[in-house]
Amino acid sequence: RENFIHLCNPHLEKMEEDILYHFALGTGTHDLPALFGDVKFVCVGGSPSRMKTFITYIADELGLGSPGSEHPNICAGTDRYAMYKVGPVLSVSHGMGIPSISIMLHELIKLLHHAKCSNVTIIRIGTSGGIGLEPGSVVITRQSVDATFKPQFEQVILGKTVIRSTDLDEQLAKELMQCSKEINEFNTVIGNTMCTLDFYEGQGRLDGAICLYTEEEKLQYLREAFDSGVRNIEMESSVFAAICNLSGVKAAVVCVTLLNRLKGDQISSSHDVLLEYQQRPQKLVGYFIKKRLGKV
Amino acid sequence: RENFIHLCNPHLEKMEEDILYHFALGTGTHDLPALFGDVKFVCVGGSPSRMKTFITYIADELGLGSPGSEHPNICAGTDRYAMYKVGPVLSVSHGMGIPSISIMLHELIKLLHHAKCSNVTIIRIGTSGGIGLEPGSVVITRQSVDATFKPQFEQVILGKTVIRSTDLDEQLAKELMQCSKEINEFNTVIGNTMCTLDFYEGQGRLDGAICLYTEEEKLQYLREAFDSGVRNIEMESSVFAAICNLSGVKAAVVCVTLLNRLKGDQISSSHDVLLEYQQRPQKLVGYFIKKRLGKV
Repeated sequence: RENFIHLCNPHLEKMEEDILYHFALGTGTHDLPALFGDVKFVCVGGSPSRMKTFITYIADELGLGSPGSEHPNICAGTDRYAMYKVGPVLSVSHGMGIPSISIMLHELIKLLHHAKCSNVTIIRIGTSGGIGLEPGSVVITRQSVDATFKPQFEQVILGKTVIRSTDLDEQLAKELMQCSKEINEFNTVIGNTMCTLDFYEGQGRLDGAICLYTEEEKLQYLREAFDSGVRNIEMESSVFAAICNLSGVKAAVVCVTLLNRLKGDQISSSHDVLLEYQQRPQKLVGYFIKKRLGKV
Repeated sequence: RENFIHLCNPHLEKMEEDILYHFALGTGTHDLPALFGDVKFVCVGGSPSRMKTFITYIADELGLGSPGSEHPNICAGTDRYAMYKVGPVLSVSHGMGIPSISIMLHELIKLLHHAKCSNVTIIRIGTSGGIGLEPGSVVITRQSVDATFKPQFEQVILGKTVIRSTDLDEQLAKELMQCSKEINEFNTVIGNTMCTLDFYEGQGRLDGAICLYTEEEKLQYLREAFDSGVRNIEMESSVFAAICNLSGVKAAVVCVTLLNRLKGDQISSSHDVLLEYQQRPQKLVGYFIKKRLGKV
């Protein structure tokens, strides 16, 4: 059975042309079904260079394209986001924070709809701060929670506060966990992910330009987060879950932890160690895609 | 009299080394006073390529560096932000949205402090949606207001809501307005700027992947915004004003409007027209810097 993208917007039907401004793509200028109609897996992450690395990695893993070949940036007409495609896999950068990923997701969901894609799975592969985990551990998100540990995304629409669910697909999370067991290369847990609007004060760091609380208050907050089930902190998962939910797309969040926030704030591991950590979500999701395509 | 950067964080004094992670710079690896000590003007904007264009423009205007010379990206070790410098001018990209500019500003304020900079002026040059203005008009922000038109920035710190002032420097805004009069090339107004966490639903657009309100409700909201003094909408000014305020840095926001939101939602002007619009804040701030340096 084919599951198409669900657009929660009756106004779109009336539009003759849809310009996806931040992708520098549009229905009037691009044949979206021809370009994207076969997409089944969308992987999104903050950094454009990391999403370029991922498409090269997945192309090699799936045996698509000649080794060492360059994958062009489909959004070359803008520097807001970068987008790469190989076979059924689309790789898109989203920048940092809820507003940045939100713009990308609105345009991505419309793109997938215009392209008549079906049965699409979207996975965010990112970096995060861990709580009570060895650095390098990977967290598959059970629920995305806000800075008060509630599983919800609050936004203001026409001046009024609206609250949306941040549920993610439970079966997909379990499937990813099983993949990690089969790879058996790094520690992976399923846990809650706290999504904040700020990296410094919003995550209780002591090393921003502004900090008006004590180390004890910080640690108490992080311990409360841990006790509520939070295992890592990042800045995009809540709106990601909310938009995918409303659009009827199965979604998961897989982030590596770059440090243990109970032990510090600065990301001080060496460049090489951080690089290897960042490859872990890519490896896990690459294996998952191969398995889904019957190539494992 | 020298005004140094004010750091609202007693913990920083105790740190032996400060890694500015998202700039790929640090006190242990870089001589920040030598690299940045002479900075007097910092211009920030969303797009990395636009901030690169700006440094080339200002270098030519100030007669610094040979024409056509390349300005290296100081943050080449990361793709989170791009940074360029020529003489007393620093140009830094900040991505889209409050969280993205907030990370950049925390690290920028610390950088300026470590470099012992004094009498620094920070100006955001950006793009925005206008309300009731001809596209291409430039808005110098009087006050940054939230989605309910209040001049404040709300954030959650250790799980508790904190409200901060979004006042900007009144004299600086007037000085910029005077510069625009002297250039006399495009319409410029001083008005309030609404700062939202979302580009689609958060700004009352009808063309996102999700829209659960009518066109009448949208227009009523935008008219209320106009009546309260709002002349444009963007996504960074509130936290920009709040952080600059707390750090004792004089700050201004100068954004061009790419469309009139009372007449539509899609940014459908031609590439060339949009490019010319985007140069207007650069021209205005370039003239301002030349004038301050006695080169007009």
